Formats: sequence, C-alpha cells, structure tokens
Amino acid sequence: MTDRPGLFDPVLARGEARAAVADDAWVAALLEVEAALAQASADVGTLDRADADAITDACRRPVDAATLGEEAAASGNPVVPLVAQLRRGLDGSAASGVHRGATSQDVVDTAAMLVARRAVAAVAGDLRASADAAADLAATHRDRPAAGRTLLQQAAPITAGLRCAGWCAGLDAAADALDAWRPAVQLGGAVGTLAAFDGHGRAVRAALARRLDLAEPVLAWHTERGRIAELAGLLGRAGAAVGSVATDLVLLAQTEVGEVREDVPGRGGSSTLPHKRNPVAAVSARAAAVAAPGLVASLLTAASLHEHERAAGPWHAEWRPLSELLRTVGSGAAWLADALGHLVVDPDRVAASLDATGGLLLAEQATTGLRARLGHAAAKDLVTDAASRAQDEGRPFADVLADALAALDDPPADPAAEVRTLLDPSRAVGEAAALVDDLLTSRSRKDRP
Amino acid sequence: MTDRPGLFDPVLARGEARAAVADDAWVAALLEVEAALAQASADVGTLDRADADAITDACRRPVDAATLGEEAAASGNPVVPLVAQLRRGLDGSAASGVHRGATSQDVVDTAAMLVARRAVAAVAGDLRASADAAADLAATHRDRPAAGRTLLQQAAPITAGLRCAGWCAGLDAAADALDAWRPAVQLGGAVGTLAAFDGHGRAVRAALARRLDLAEPVLAWHTERGRIAELAGLLGRAGAAVGSVATDLVLLAQTEVGEVREDVPGRGGSSTLPHKRNPVAAVSARAAAVAAPGLVASLLTAASLHEHERAAGPWHAEWRPLSELLRTVGSGAAWLADALGHLVVDPDRVAASLDATGGLLLAEQATTGLRARLGHAAAKDLVTDAASRAQDEGRPFADVLADALAALDDPPADPAAEVRTLLDPSRAVGEAAALVDDLLTSRSRKDRP
Amino acid sequence: MTDRPGLFDPVLARGEARAAVADDAWVAALLEVEAALAQASADVGTLDRADADAITDACRRPVDAATLGEEAAASGNPVVPLVAQLRRGLDGSAASGVHRGATSQDVVDTAAMLVARRAVAAVAGDLRASADAAADLAATHRDRPAAGRTLLQQAAPITAGLRCAGWCAGLDAAADALDAWRPAVQLGGAVGTLAAFDGHGRAVRAALARRLDLAEPVLAWHTERGRIAELAGLLGRAGAAVGSVATDLVLLAQTEVGEVREDVPGRGGSSTLPHKRNPVAAVSARAAAVAAPGLVASLLTAASLHEHERAAGPWHAEWRPLSELLRTVGSGAAWLADALGHLVVDPDRVAASLDATGGLLLAEQATTGLRARLGHAAAKDLVTDAASRAQDEGRPFADVLADALAALDDPPADPAAEVRTLLDPSRAVGEAAALVDDLLTSRSRKDRP
Amino acid sequence: MTDRPGLFDPVLARGEARAAVADDAWVAALLEVEAALAQASADVGTLDRADADAITDACRRPVDAATLGEEAAASGNPVVPLVAQLRRGLDGSAASGVHRGATSQDVVDTAAMLVARRAVAAVAGDLRASADAAADLAATHRDRPAAGRTLLQQAAPITAGLRCAGWCAGLDAAADALDAWRPAVQLGGAVGTLAAFDGHGRAVRAALARRLDLAEPVLAWHTERGRIAELAGLLGRAGAAVGSVATDLVLLAQTEVGEVREDVPGRGGSSTLPHKRNPVAAVSARAAAVAAPGLVASLLTAASLHEHERAAGPWHAEWRPLSELLRTVGSGAAWLADALGHLVVDPDRVAASLDATGGLLLAEQATTGLRARLGHAAAKDLVTDAASRAQDEGRPFADVLADALAALDDPPADPAAEVRTLLDPSRAVGEAAALVDDLLTSRSRKDRP
Repeated sequence: MTDRPGLFDPVLARGEARAAVADDAWVAALLEVEAALAQASADVGTLDRADADAITDACRRPVDAATLGEEAAASGNPVVPLVAQLRRGLDGSAASGVHRGATSQDVVDTAAMLVARRAVAAVAGDLRASADAAADLAATHRDRPAAGRTLLQQAAPITAGLRCAGWCAGLDAAADALDAWRPAVQLGGAVGTLAAFDGHGRAVRAALARRLDLAEPVLAWHTERGRIAELAGLLGRAGAAVGSVATDLVLLAQTEVGEVREDVPGRGGSSTLPHKRNPVAAVSARAAAVAAPGLVASLLTAASLHEHERAAGPWHAEWRPLSELLRTVGSGAAWLADALGHLVVDPDRVAASLDATGGLLLAEQATTGLRARLGHAAAKDLVTDAASRAQDEGRPFADVLADALAALDDPPADPAAEVRTLLDPSRAVGEAAALVDDLLTSRSRKDRP
Repeated sequence: MTDRPGLFDPVLARGEARAAVADDAWVAALLEVEAALAQASADVGTLDRADADAITDACRRPVDAATLGEEAAASGNPVVPLVAQLRRGLDGSAASGVHRGATSQDVVDTAAMLVARRAVAAVAGDLRASADAAADLAATHRDRPAAGRTLLQQAAPITAGLRCAGWCAGLDAAADALDAWRPAVQLGGAVGTLAAFDGHGRAVRAALARRLDLAEPVLAWHTERGRIAELAGLLGRAGAAVGSVATDLVLLAQTEVGEVREDVPGRGGSSTLPHKRNPVAAVSARAAAVAAPGLVASLLTAASLHEHERAAGPWHAEWRPLSELLRTVGSGAAWLADALGHLVVDPDRVAASLDATGGLLLAEQATTGLRARLGHAAAKDLVTDAASRAQDEGRPFADVLADALAALDDPPADPAAEVRTLLDPSRAVGEAAALVDDLLTSRSRKDRP
Repeated sequence: MTDRPGLFDPVLARGEARAAVADDAWVAALLEVEAALAQASADVGTLDRADADAITDACRRPVDAATLGEEAAASGNPVVPLVAQLRRGLDGSAASGVHRGATSQDVVDTAAMLVARRAVAAVAGDLRASADAAADLAATHRDRPAAGRTLLQQAAPITAGLRCAGWCAGLDAAADALDAWRPAVQLGGAVGTLAAFDGHGRAVRAALARRLDLAEPVLAWHTERGRIAELAGLLGRAGAAVGSVATDLVLLAQTEVGEVREDVPGRGGSSTLPHKRNPVAAVSARAAAVAAPGLVASLLTAASLHEHERAAGPWHAEWRPLSELLRTVGSGAAWLADALGHLVVDPDRVAASLDATGGLLLAEQATTGLRARLGHAAAKDLVTDAASRAQDEGRPFADVLADALAALDDPPADPAAEVRTLLDPSRAVGEAAALVDDLLTSRSRKDRP
Repeated sequence: MTDRPGLFDPVLARGEARAAVADDAWVAALLEVEAALAQASADVGTLDRADADAITDACRRPVDAATLGEEAAASGNPVVPLVAQLRRGLDGSAASGVHRGATSQDVVDTAAMLVARRAVAAVAGDLRASADAAADLAATHRDRPAAGRTLLQQAAPITAGLRCAGWCAGLDAAADALDAWRPAVQLGGAVGTLAAFDGHGRAVRAALARRLDLAEPVLAWHTERGRIAELAGLLGRAGAAVGSVATDLVLLAQTEVGEVREDVPGRGGSSTLPHKRNPVAAVSARAAAVAAPGLVASLLTAASLHEHERAAGPWHAEWRPLSELLRTVGSGAAWLADALGHLVVDPDRVAASLDATGGLLLAEQATTGLRARLGHAAAKDLVTDAASRAQDEGRPFADVLADALAALDDPPADPAAEVRTLLDPSRAVGEAAALVDDLLTSRSRKDRP
C-alpha cells in the first residue's frame, strides 16, 4: 500500500511507473476525481461552490488504503467506503454533495485514467531516454563495421551505428504511440444515462473532463472497454520494443562476443569470476518484457467479456493486470534506459567478431568485386573454392584467396592488397551510413512533448 | 492451401478475412511483391524494363502453395523456392533480375503487409457494418425504456437505444483504429544495409512503397517488430469489441429474458424444441473473440524476442498466429454484423423485463419524486418500507406504494395515478435520448474511407 | 512487503494464498532454505553442527524485505544481500558456512517451492471447500427438476442437484490435481555440477530434500522449468474450474432468473435498490479467474526461454507472475467457497424457470410419451402442431396439447391428466439422480490428505 | 481440409501431429464415435446388432469435410449435418438408430479426445525421440568439460554431457506427463442427464468407453472443461521443454560459439556464405514453441467461461486453438528430435569456449586449490590480483598466475605445472559425471509404453 518497494521491486519494478500505480497513487486519484466532480458540479451550478470547496478540502485529508480495501470487500469496490468516509467528515449540503450523480465505476475508471496517464508518462519517458541513448550510440558508431547476424549466424557486415539506429527507431515508435494516447473521463451514473444529474449530466461531464484534462467521450464506456484494450495494446508494443533491444544487448554482451558491456561501477561484477560482467540492466529489462504479453491478454480477455451496464467480474479483473502491466513495462523501459545509457561498445571485440570467420563473411562481396576481372561464374567458382579450402585446411580465407589470385593466368600486381580491398568490410555495408543519417534527421525534425 | 473452407471454418472463419489469409492469398502476395520489386528496380534504372516486365509476367503464372511449402522446409521460408521457380522460368538477365538485392524476409514481410491490409479491410468493413446496424437499432429504439443491469442484476432503467448506441460506439472506435493502420514496405537486404542494391537501395525502396501503396519506413524493420505488435493490439481491441457486444446479445436472447433474437430463417431453430431460438451468430462471434487475446500474446511475445538482423524462430512464429488472429477477429466481426443485421428487438419482452421487479427498479426515482412532498428522509423511509413490504408480501410494489400514499396524513388525490408517474420508466432514463442523438450526430460527421 | 492487504486485495486477493506469497513469506522461505542447507551440510558432515545451529539461529532473526529488495538490484536477486547480512551476524566458521556450496538460484527456487506449497495448499483447500458445498447442494437438490440450458437457451430439464454435482466434479478434479503436485528441491551450485560441495553435493541435496520434505530431482532444474510450467498448468486449470462455476452462479442469480442467491447479511444489498442482491462473491471469483490464463502464458513463455545454466531474464520473470497466479487463483477459490457456502437455491424460482416456456421445454418428452398411442410420426406432428399454435396464439402449451388430445378419434379419458403426466419434468431428467449418487459415492470413497 | 500440408506447414507443422488434427482426421473421428455409439447401443441391447453394423458400414463411407463445414454454419457444429447424411444413407431402424440418445457435443467432444490422443502420441513420441538423442549425447560427452554460462556469461565449467542430460530430463518429464494423460469419453445427451437413453445411458456410456478405450467419467463434462485445461497445460509444458532446449541449440550454434551444429546434408547451408550453417531445425522448433503459451491461454480462457449445460461460444472456441496447439507443439517436438538426432558437437570449439577467458573461468578453483598452501585470504588475494593483471595487461591468466607463484617466498617446484593442475577444467566439474550416470540409470529403469 505504501510507496516503499517490495522484495522483488528493485529488480522487477524499477522506474517511476511503480509508484504511479501504487495503492497510494490509486487512492490519491480517487480523491482527485471526487474533488474534481464536486468542482465540476459547482461549475455548472448544481452544487454550491462553498460545498465543492469543502469537499475538495476533505479530499486532501489522508486516507488509509488498506482500510478502504478491507471495507471494499462488502461492495466490491473501494469507492463505496471512500464516499462514506468523505461524507462522515462533512456537514449537510456538502456531505450530500459528495459523489453526486456518479456511480462507483465513474470514479474508479476516471481515476484509472489518471493513474495510467502518470504511469504512461513514466514509461514513455524511459522509452525516449532509451531511444536518445541509442541515437547517441548510432551517431558515435555510424561508420564502425560490425558483424550482422541472421538466425544467430554471422551473415554480412553492418555497422554498429545502424544496429543502434534500429533500436532507436523501435523505441521511438513505441514512445510516440504512448505519447499519442488520450485518456478519457468516465461519467455515466449507475447505468450510463446520467439520470441522477437532473439533466445536467453532460455539462458536468464536460466540466469534469476540462478540470482533469481528459478527453470527453460521446458516451460512457462502462462496458465499452476499447480504451483499456487500446492501452493494453500500446503497452504490449512498448514491452516488445524493450524486450527485443534487451535481447540484443545480452547477446552482444556474451563472453564469446563481448561487443558491448554495461559500465556501471559496483554492478554486475563478481569477485570470484573476474571476467564476468553481468549485463544486469539488460537482463532485468528482458525479465520485465517477458511478463507483458500475458497481462495484455488478461486485459483483452476482460475487455471482451463486459456485460450490460456493468460487468460481473471482468471490470474488477482490470485493476491488478493494468497496474502490473504498467509496472512491468515501466520497469523494462527504465532498465533499458539504464543499460543503453551506460553501454560501452568495445571496438576491438566488434572488429574481432567481424574477423571471426577469417573473411568468409565477405565472400559474397569478394565475388562481386572479382566479377569485372573474371566474369560472374568464374569469380564465384574461385571464391567458393577458396572458401572451402580455407575451411578444410584451417587457413585464413584471405591467405587462400590471395594464393588463388596469384595463381591466375593474369594475376593482380599485389594479390594481398587486392584481397584487403575485396574483404574490406567498410565497403560491404551498403547504405548503412545514410540510413543512420536519415534516422537521426527524422528524429530531430519531430516536436515532442 | 486452397480457398475452400475447412471443417470448422464456416463457424469459426466466417467473412472475407479467411480467404484473405489463405495460402493462395499469401502466395499471390509474395508474387505481387516480387513483381513490384522488379518494376521498382526498373523505375530507378537498375533493371531493364523488359526484364521487369518478363518477371512480372512470370509472377502471374500459377504456383502451387503446397509444393512451395514442402521446399521451404530446407531453408525455413517459402521465398527461397519461389525465387528459384521464377528464375527457372526466365532467361538470362531477367532470371538474374528476380529478387535482386532483396532477402527472403523483405518479401515475406512486405507480403504479410499486403495480406494483412486486405484482411484488415475485411475486418474493419464488418465492424463498420456491425456499427451501422447498431446505429439503426439505436435510432429505432431511442426512446424505448429498458432494464439496465449491473453485475447481471437489474439496476435502473436505460433505453434500448442507448444500449445499442454503446455497441455502436465501441465497434466504430475499433474500426476507426483499424482504418488508421498504415502498413509499411520492408526492404533491407540480408542485414538491413541495402548492400546488394549498389547504392540505389533507398530509391528502390521508395519506388516499391509507391507501387504497393505502402508507407516507407526510415529503416528496415526486420527485427523491429513494432508494426506487428501494433497490428496485434488493434486486432485484439477489435476482438474485444466484438466479444463484448456478442456477450450482451446472448444474454439478452436468453429464454428468460428474450429481449432480442436473431431472425434468420432456417438457422438456430429446433424442430424438437419449438421455443428455442439459438442466437447462432452471436454465439459464433463470441467463440471467435475468445481466441483472440491468446494470439495477440503470441505475437507480442514473438515481437519481444527478435534478435540481431533476423530472428532465430520468433520471425517464423508470426506467420500462423497473425493469419489466425486476422481470421478469428474477422470471423467474429462477420458473425456480429450478421447478428446485429438480423436482430429483432421484442418490445413486449423489453417491457416485461422492466416490469420484472414490479417497479422496484424505480424505487430510487420514487424517492426522488416524493422528496418535494415529504422531505428527503421521510420519502426514503416510505419508499424503502413499501419496497420491503412488497418483497415480503409478494405484492406488486406499485400497489403497496399506492396504499402507503393513501395512508398519508395528506394523501394525493389519486394515489394510483401518482404512483404511475413516480414509477414511469421513461422519466428515469436521464439524458439517454440526447446521448443517442449525440452519438448519431458524431457518426454522421465523419468522413470515412 | 508486509502482510497487510492492499487496496484491491480484499476483492482480488481473498483467502490465504495472498499471505502465503507476500514478501514476508518469501523472505521467511529464503531463510528457511538457508537454515535447512546448513543443517543438511551438518547431516552429511561438511559443516559442524554448532555452526549449523548458529546459522539456523541467525535465520530466525528478523529481516527487512524492502531493504533486501533494494540491495538486490545490484546483483539481480535478493539472496546475495541476504547471505551477506547473515554472514555479518556470525563469526568465523559459521559465517563461512552460510550458503556453502549453493548459488542464489538454488535458494530462490527452493524457497519458491516452499512458498508455492503453502499457497497451493490454500488454493486446494478452498477448492475442496467449494466442492464440499457443491456436494451438499447436490444432495439437497438431488431430485429437484430445473431448466437445463444450452447456448443460454432453455433446452431440456435437468435437476438442480445434477448441476451442483457437475460443479463439484470439476472443483474436486482441480483440487486433486493440485494435491498431487510434488514440489522439488533445487541444489546445483553455480552451474548445476555441485562443484562447490567437495563431492558431497548429492548427499547434501538428499538431506536438504528430507529436511524440507521436498522431492529430490535427479538433476538440478535451474533452466529446466518443467516444474514451473506444470504448476502453472495446474493453477490454470483450477482457475478455469472456479471461473466456470462462478459464471453459472452469476447467470443463475440474474434478476430475471433468480434461481440462486448468495445469502450473506450485509453484503451485496442496496438501500436504494431493494430488489438487488449482488452476487458479490461469485462476481469476485469471476474477476479472479479472468486474470489467470494470461499469467499462465507468462510463466510458460518464461519457461520456454531459459538459456544455458541460468537464464538472462526469464528466471527473474517467474517471480511476480507465479506469486500473482497463486494469489488470483487462491482468491477465486476462496470467493467461490464463500459463494457456494452461502448459496440459497430458491425452489419457486427454479420451478418458475422450468415453467417459463409453458411446457414447451417438454415437447420432446411429450412426443416420446405419445409414441405408443399414435406412432412416432403422428405423435411428432401432433406435438409440433400444438407447440406452434401455443406460440402463435400465446396460449399455454399444456392447454393446447390437452385440446389436441381431446380432439383425437380415440381421446384419452382425462386429457388434462394425460398432459400433466406427459409434461411432468421429473420424468424428463433421465438418470440425473443416479448420476448424483454416483458422484457422491465416488467422492466418499477417496482418502484425501 | 485435406491432408496435404499448407504453405507454412513444413516449417511450422512438422511431424505427425499435423495430420492427426487435420480436417480429415476430425471427420474420421466423428464417424468413429458414431459407429462406436451404435455398437455400444447394441452391446447393451438398445439397438439391433444388424442396425449397428449397418451404421458402422455407413460410417466407413467417405464424407467431405468442407461440405460438412458449410452445412455446420446453420447449427453451429458439424455433427448435425453429419448425422443427417448418415441417416440419408440408411433405412428405417438403422437410420433412426444413428446418434441415438446423443447430442452433438457428445460426439464432437469424444472425437476431440480421439484426435487429441493420436496427436498427443505423436508429440510424446517426438519428445521421447528428442530425449533419447539427448541421452546419447550425454553418454558420449559425459566427461567433456565445457563452459557453463549464467546470464549468457561464462560462469564455471560443466560437462557437455551434463548439459545434454539436462535437456534429456526436461524432455522426458514432458513426455511422461503426456503419456500419463487419459482422455475420457463424453456422453450426456442434450443436458447431461442421459434422458434419451431410456435408463440405459450409463450402460451405453460404459460400453462406448470400452469400445474406444477411453476413460469413463462419473459425469458428463460438457461444461466442466478441466480435461481440456489439463491437456492445454501439459502441452504448454511440452512446448516450454522444446523451446528451452532449442534456445540452447541456437545459442551454442552461434558463429562465435560453434560448439554444436546440425548436420543435415542440403539443409541450412549457403552457397554464398560458406561458413554459415543455419540451425534450421532448432530455429523451427523455437518458432513452434513461441506460439504455444498464447494458445494455452485461449483454451484456459474458454474453459473458464463455459455456461450451464452448453457454452454459448466458449465450446466452439476450443476447436481451432486445441488443434493448433497440438500442431505447433508437435512441430516443435518433431523439429527438436531432428535437431538433436543430427547434432554434432565440435570438441575443438567446446574446448575453445572453455579457454576463451584464458583460464579466468577457473579462478575460483585456483583459489580453492591454493588454499592449503597459502591460507584462504592470501590465496584469494593472489588469484584476484593475477586475474586483474591478466585482464589489464592482456596476458594469459595462466602465465600471470605462474609468475605470481614463482614469485612466492616458497614457490612450487614447477609453477607452470602447478598452474596447469589448478586450471584443469576436468577437476572443476564437481559431480557432473555422477549426475549424468544417475540420469541415464533412472531412465533405463522406467518401463515406457
């Protein structure tokens, strides 16, 4: 209930989303909605401003979340005891003005939007910080050739910068989607007709939306949960963006690859295993991402089951999975921002990976390069033969290839130099640099909140 | 492989999405991409137009999907044998121009976008047809009082029109979200550098996007699967919209409620159970919706696992779940359009439901109505007492309430008439009519594709 | 961290599973494992008993879960700081004996089994209590005819007892499956070789298993997570059993059906809606069940991703979903036990439902009953015709049928009496009573823990 | 509908499960149930044996699945048109004996059990074949030291044999669980009362179970779907076992690791990338595993929603996900059996991995080994210092350590020899060999079907 993190939270609930969805934050949001409802009623004239102010004051007094929770069991939601408590602390017309016209779900749903908005901002902020760090890495390593891998096999050269640019693009897109999310107020009364507002329901709703800076829907959405499903989808996408980048990081940080490491003093090391540098942040980001799709499914399932004018279970079924989804995706984003913000690219290991096949990774480029001299078929034969011999004889491909060139009827003047050119990875990365530039340019053009 | 529906398809794969994601449609899309790639190469001058035209012709010849599939097992995807087959049917420069510069994933991913676009259009179309039918029902029953229910208990009056308007709003929103989805071309070559395009990669990509009417991304998205995750989320939302409305339909069609029925001659009836009218369409729509969240989770999980420059499994893991998700949500939308398009609202049963509690549903309104005469506390006591007696004695609430009014020191002139007014449901539906009007007006304002 | 319930817990985390998976319980389990490991080491002679006793004492001192959690962020799990803390409180050989030979995962995994065992016992206990209550209801209403429903349409008579027996069977089976679950100890050291046990690793493992009453696996299961996947599956099944029964309860409690209600004074009522009896327990049980499948998927996904000798994320990804799954299924089972334990079957409403179609529900039985007198075809025609006329004319089917019998060339002596027999629902329930007896007998035969 | 594989099936639906769940297999199972029901009725005397034989003959005639499917749309399931078709082909008493007493769901559910049994046998068979291959590898490489990895970082030596033994244990356990699964017959009639069996329902059910070799449940399970949930859980576990092993394979096969490769001529190679050996089988196995958890969630969700005596959607919602889950887990198991059956362990690369840190992986063992000579603290200091210097200076750890030993006041006679012993990985694998032996022994003791 309190803001203090739990046992697994520092690992699994990093970042600001955790506090944003904590019980205290939920209670604060419920009170914020009740206060805003009173003021909105005053705005349209259905409640005296003095009463609204008294209610607003009452909503600032501390409330114990656990007590609310306990009392909620009888009615099924915490608003019933919250309203009772607020009324006990007020007199006459102010007491009767509390929660006027609204139903519990109006308050819980609107509060959920406030809670989610803060948590989403935290998630999006950490996604953007991750993207920023990736963009910096992309710029720094724009022209650094590196091994590209498909199916975890080295396939062809890329640049380290293009790899980082790819991360940046995915993280930006996930953040953009969350930034574009617009939470909406909920106000409908018991069954969505606004019947208890004496004809002023839509006006109160508009005022409430204005006061809380929420969108105003045409109809109440008490059992039309597209908004929840939409948010779940956006968070699922964010979690996927985090997970995919974090997966790259733990793979690149492998002992046998070592192209990157997280450089955070005092973390991830081992006194007994001096070579070990656990990528703690990326590992924790992955852990967070694994949990997200199931929670998305839970929320979508609930959304598909809402009945009539209030669901018999599926509504309550949103609260924990939504909080948990925000928390886990937020944690993943925060850890990823940490990982990328502290990421060190090891140029030697990047180069070593590229050289791991002794130049075989560039066999295709060599074929292309020899086409003008030998024709396509002969070029391909020469290269393929050299590659096979290099593998069979355990010799460097470059050496075997140089020998083959030297043995041609019309050999190049300096076969070794020719081979260096043929196997130069910086000539094999296509439009990588331009693509990185395109990404950085497109990024700089956007005005973001 | 063929377009013929399978054993469970008429129930579980109704609508046009099924054919849009069938093997034949996938193969056609793969061929469409190869042809467009050739023409795009000609557009930028890296391939002779004559060769491009020859390739385009070759792409129009029939291809057997099962054979492709069998040959795909060795390489892991169907493009490798497809390209081989295309090349076998062409000569020299045209043969070597097939698939130039591209990698298998470029073609599969771009084809997936084409497949998804057609299926999404089918889904959105059926969602819109459902929304249209719901809007018609909302207009027709705008002023018909009906029982509103929370937790499956009657709670307060609504109108049948407002209920239908709620359905319409959710279905429209889900369709709007799908309409706004913009699929993107994929072109990066083996590792995303466009290395095999001799510097013309981005130009070819732009031409390809133009020819296929797809968005052009800044970077290849071979392992940045936000686009797939986004689509999964949108479809999950659509499935939830379908499921929730279909759930309302089967509940309203219950024998004991009977407020609606699907009126399709020859369907849902029973010769041995003459009273039975199975809401076959709504049941089938629900069945479709149940399957969606798990498939969304599968796609999000896959999206979170893509490694490096091509994923070792998670990429392949998209194909069936994506097809299946489009198919099942499409089926749900198609069945729901059928259900709502044939929906008959039974006015007598709607009225009977509203009367099921003998007026107790309107106890709150009666209290409000008597406030002016008796003051709030006395009004509440009188009504609560009458309600209890009605339940205990098994008498109609209206009668007990009339007796109570007659027994007042200052009774109304005509207690029964007073009670009729107090318990008139049409006075208890708040702003329902205006809300329906708002919805219909907001709908008519939108320009939709 | 503390045992106090959170805001939504009384609704969404009822029962003893919540406390069993709380942070305090996790910390207690971690300490229990460290203590048992020390004693097991003493059992096989690799640690002095006095040191083991000192460690055991140290494990009884209070530990703050939140502090542990905060310190865990650097290493990725709470055992590293826990061991450091234990060692700080001990001298020399005892300090060095703490955690001897083990790795963090050994302790977390074994503790997870202890945590899960207690929570599973709570879940199974509440499932069994639910089944017991259902069995009592089955016995009580063994011979009470009731309307059976397919696709939410009345289809044919059952007995209320058979319905309850069906609930009982599903709940018993789910509880049996959980009772049969056997948690296992984890001990393997850093990479599963038991290398730090100086050759005594398997002996220590056996002693540890004995002390904790856990099964002893042949190998460490640090990345072979079948045990977690198995438990997830069992809990998913339990959640489904809960959800299905709770769904029946909310449907049967509908205002328009009213065959059952939860009779808990002070809960679910409404002062303003006197007829409303919210089935709060069943609604809460449903809410719990909705969340389970997604959590099962999260755990299965994690289980499928474990790499090498310790997973880079998927391991950590188990902790919260496992706790949450135990909590939510436990809550569902606890609420369902409450719902079924307080369930009141309303005989009049059961009878009213059965009569809702005016006897049409028994049309098939009437046909069968008339076969001897009229032959199959004529019997069917007569009944079908009567049913149609009853529906068309809005007359009771029984009356129309009696008229039809009276109009036969050879009418029965007392058509009305004949019709009463033909439409007697107690003759239409087949072997329902015997089936209930079978279930109750099979139940009584089992020896349960 | 036919048995011919679809476009993606050779990659995503390998093995015999695909055919076992194909439409043809479903139709065959439906017919097998109808025939067995007729014979069971004859067994208990409610149908003439001649009629039963005629029905059995009719059930052997070819039926077109697509036509059935099309006709199923009106009723919602394929049994209604199937029964009609069977009756059309028979006379009088035989025609009327078809499907006697049963409801559609009885036949579909029992057929689903037959379908699942065959598919489960295929899955279990391929899991066992995978386990057998892993056991062979474990025996072969029982004593081969290899690098153990935690969080994808090298952590301590294991043996290649122990790694394979771990795979074997998980695959065996998953297969054992599937082998222990016992499908049950479904027979209840329209609402589970066996009302249309004239008192012989339970006897017919027993005979039907006997004829189909299925378990006989106490009650019908038309809406008690624990059996489906149980099967889903078992398959989810199997998928996780497959996924985890396949993940290890793709990681070990990485270009930079290269400890294993799949040796299947003509598969996974590349003419242009001669070093590339795509682990096609393991990649495909992973792809299959990714899809399983979501399908499990779909089935569990459906199971939790069944209402009354037949579900309004959740029942139909089982058919495709169940087939798809069997198919995908079956594909994963088949691919994994292929991968493990063709797995080549490269001893040189295994040794090279172990040497990648220049002996740092054995720093802990070196400390332990020097404890007797130097005391614990001094030993640790010496080793830690040497490790740091080795990393800083880029020299082999063994050399630095030998220098440090030589510089001791009381140096060993042959520091280099001492270091070879200290850093001998075969001394650092603890009880690995005994653990492998334990596993192989425990395996050989089991009698398996």
